[in-house]
Amino acid sequence: MRYTDNYNPTISDEDVFNEIVNEKESIGYYNLVHQDTAPYKEYAQTVKQKNIVVIGIGGSTLGTYAIYKFLKHSKTLTKKLYFLETTDPIDIKSKLMNIDLSDTLFVVISKSGTTIETVSIFKYLHSLVTIDKTNTVIITEHDSKLNTYALANDMKRFEIPKDVGGRFSVFSAVGLLPLAVVGIDIDEILAGTKEMHDSFFNQELDYKKILKKARFFTENRNKFNINVVFSYSSRLEGFNKWYIQLWGESLGKIDINNTNQGLTPIGIIGPIDQHSFLQLIVQGTRDKTVTVIKIDDFYSDLTIPPTKLQGLEELDYINNMKFSKLINMQADSSIEALNNLKDIPCDVITIDSISERSVASLMYEYELLTSVCAKFMYINAYDQPGVEAGKIILKDKLKLKN
Amino acid sequence: MRYTDNYNPTISDEDVFNEIVNEKESIGYYNLVHQDTAPYKEYAQTVKQKNIVVIGIGGSTLGTYAIYKFLKHSKTLTKKLYFLETTDPIDIKSKLMNIDLSDTLFVVISKSGTTIETVSIFKYLHSLVTIDKTNTVIITEHDSKLNTYALANDMKRFEIPKDVGGRFSVFSAVGLLPLAVVGIDIDEILAGTKEMHDSFFNQELDYKKILKKARFFTENRNKFNINVVFSYSSRLEGFNKWYIQLWGESLGKIDINNTNQGLTPIGIIGPIDQHSFLQLIVQGTRDKTVTVIKIDDFYSDLTIPPTKLQGLEELDYINNMKFSKLINMQADSSIEALNNLKDIPCDVITIDSISERSVASLMYEYELLTSVCAKFMYINAYDQPGVEAGKIILKDKLKLKN
Repeated sequence: MRYTDNYNPTISDEDVFNEIVNEKESIGYYNLVHQDTAPYKEYAQTVKQKNIVVIGIGGSTLGTYAIYKFLKHSKTLTKKLYFLETTDPIDIKSKLMNIDLSDTLFVVISKSGTTIETVSIFKYLHSLVTIDKTNTVIITEHDSKLNTYALANDMKRFEIPKDVGGRFSVFSAVGLLPLAVVGIDIDEILAGTKEMHDSFFNQELDYKKILKKARFFTENRNKFNINVVFSYSSRLEGFNKWYIQLWGESLGKIDINNTNQGLTPIGIIGPIDQHSFLQLIVQGTRDKTVTVIKIDDFYSDLTIPPTKLQGLEELDYINNMKFSKLINMQADSSIEALNNLKDIPCDVITIDSISERSVASLMYEYELLTSVCAKFMYINAYDQPGVEAGKIILKDKLKLKN
Repeated sequence: MRYTDNYNPTISDEDVFNEIVNEKESIGYYNLVHQDTAPYKEYAQTVKQKNIVVIGIGGSTLGTYAIYKFLKHSKTLTKKLYFLETTDPIDIKSKLMNIDLSDTLFVVISKSGTTIETVSIFKYLHSLVTIDKTNTVIITEHDSKLNTYALANDMKRFEIPKDVGGRFSVFSAVGLLPLAVVGIDIDEILAGTKEMHDSFFNQELDYKKILKKARFFTENRNKFNINVVFSYSSRLEGFNKWYIQLWGESLGKIDINNTNQGLTPIGIIGPIDQHSFLQLIVQGTRDKTVTVIKIDDFYSDLTIPPTKLQGLEELDYINNMKFSKLINMQADSSIEALNNLKDIPCDVITIDSISERSVASLMYEYELLTSVCAKFMYINAYDQPGVEAGKIILKDKLKLKN
């Protein structure tokens, strides 16, 4: 009798780190921190249009949206950014109603180049406005069919490297180009990613934090199969959505033992979801970890005035308080309440401020955390074979229709 | 030796139904279908302002937002509805920037009357604009401190009945008043709820459907602890959020055996989240049920034109197709792909159209489903004791500060 097995061996932090270092040669996102941003900034300088409409879906929009939503009210931006993502006709029509298409740059983004939502919306735009090289830029892989289209129409093109997956592409042209065009400082963004990159690859503080967290999340994934990100600022709503894609699509996989694996992401916003989801965390089944994200400095003096409201005097203790202080006290109170329960795993990330550097560093940290979790789970973080079946069925249905 | 126990007995459909019928006497939401809508409509007639700003959070806003978001682009509405919910200073400031406050009706909603987010934002508004009975209406319990304020200022008041919980209050004044003011047909809304009410309480089709589903969800809750609602229309984004509160806050409870219970809601939007979350459903751990919601008729002719795009000819099979048809084919393809896997519990709700009646019926169905699940789980669906600890800690922190 002969016997071998492929049971998961115990894996050390150092093993994982070495695998990640090796992976840097084939997985491109790690190295985007070293990019030359000049081509994006030069192109941005040439854009005269007031409106920037990104046509894309999933990894082609979520990261850009996350950064734009985080910063847009805290920066003086000269252009407005919109996203056309879905085939919902009411959504397409209502969004376009508010945009002057004659003063718009269209940024068409598809890694594969044949994303059905993106192409169908792009076709529809042709019926509304002349589309040509003066108002359209294409971001795709260098050999995709969308690239062929761009070449045939002499359109400006930016490339998504083959080894950068869609949901890991925010720091490639996918995110940096539209963000540069609307006036966001993309060098500061890359500086934020580089801080995290260096701290991790030099095995400093963030390395230890990420390894510890990934180990805890993955080793306890049968008990705590849900990872809640509880962001105390509506500015992080886009980040939450980006996190959900990154986490869900990277970690929901069949592992090397042919077993369905996964960690389920949930994104909630404080204090709003104290009034919707917190009850479930506090009294519900113990199946969730909670990561609270706070912002130290909102750069805001907005203050509750000492208005007297007859009947409501008992709340006068909030008078003269800054809203930024109140929301952070709300976060701290939730954290304290969770910690008092003793049986809910909870960690807290406090980012410095509403700035390019902060959000980029946070996002790069989550990319690293995702990659490390995948190592512990013996899965490939970078593919998404599970969505192919539905695409094939759709294609068959569509061809049948004609 | 004596012995008794409180183990959960097996509970029959008929038992549950009888408990729900009994509960109708003490739980008010069931009976909102029989309301007289005249007071709301009469008040709506008197409103001259163009902007309606609801100040509230959680159950005071989510249901109204769900219905408004669903309908707003498919109806001719004369007024615009906004929501101020959070203490995030950037959010408050950016929202108010776009509203002419001199032409605004403020609808202040708080069941308890002392919700800290609501009162702090309301105070802040006093520093921007004169607040008086000409531009403010109050919706609260009849004996709350906010009611005292309204009386002292001679303001128009509408009552939230004591026996109607916040997250079950959308069909009370909380939702019907602002919706009537912006021009939504609230009689059609109640008609939709009444259809579902009658079908359930006459033990017809919806009764059987709801009982079967609630039994499946609750009996399998240790395996499938996550219930995904996959809505194929961006119009249902508000519904998803409302569902998350209703489900999470109602079913995340300590049961009669002193055990943490819960079912975790997730809301995703198709086709967008085919590119973010579907991979996790398809290849991830088998811990999720999936409910797909489709809309039969979008009332939209928006069509993909037969534009030729050089290089992208392989996608010409989408030419001349209505977007509404495409999105529903995308939904059907996802459903087929999930069903082919055989081990993912999936049900499909198809609502007729983008109309008051459809969305109201859907929401009332989810309220009933929540109530029935709570019976099977031996928990109280209508309280939320788990969020009190955080509130007490916050109050202590705030008082200490002064």
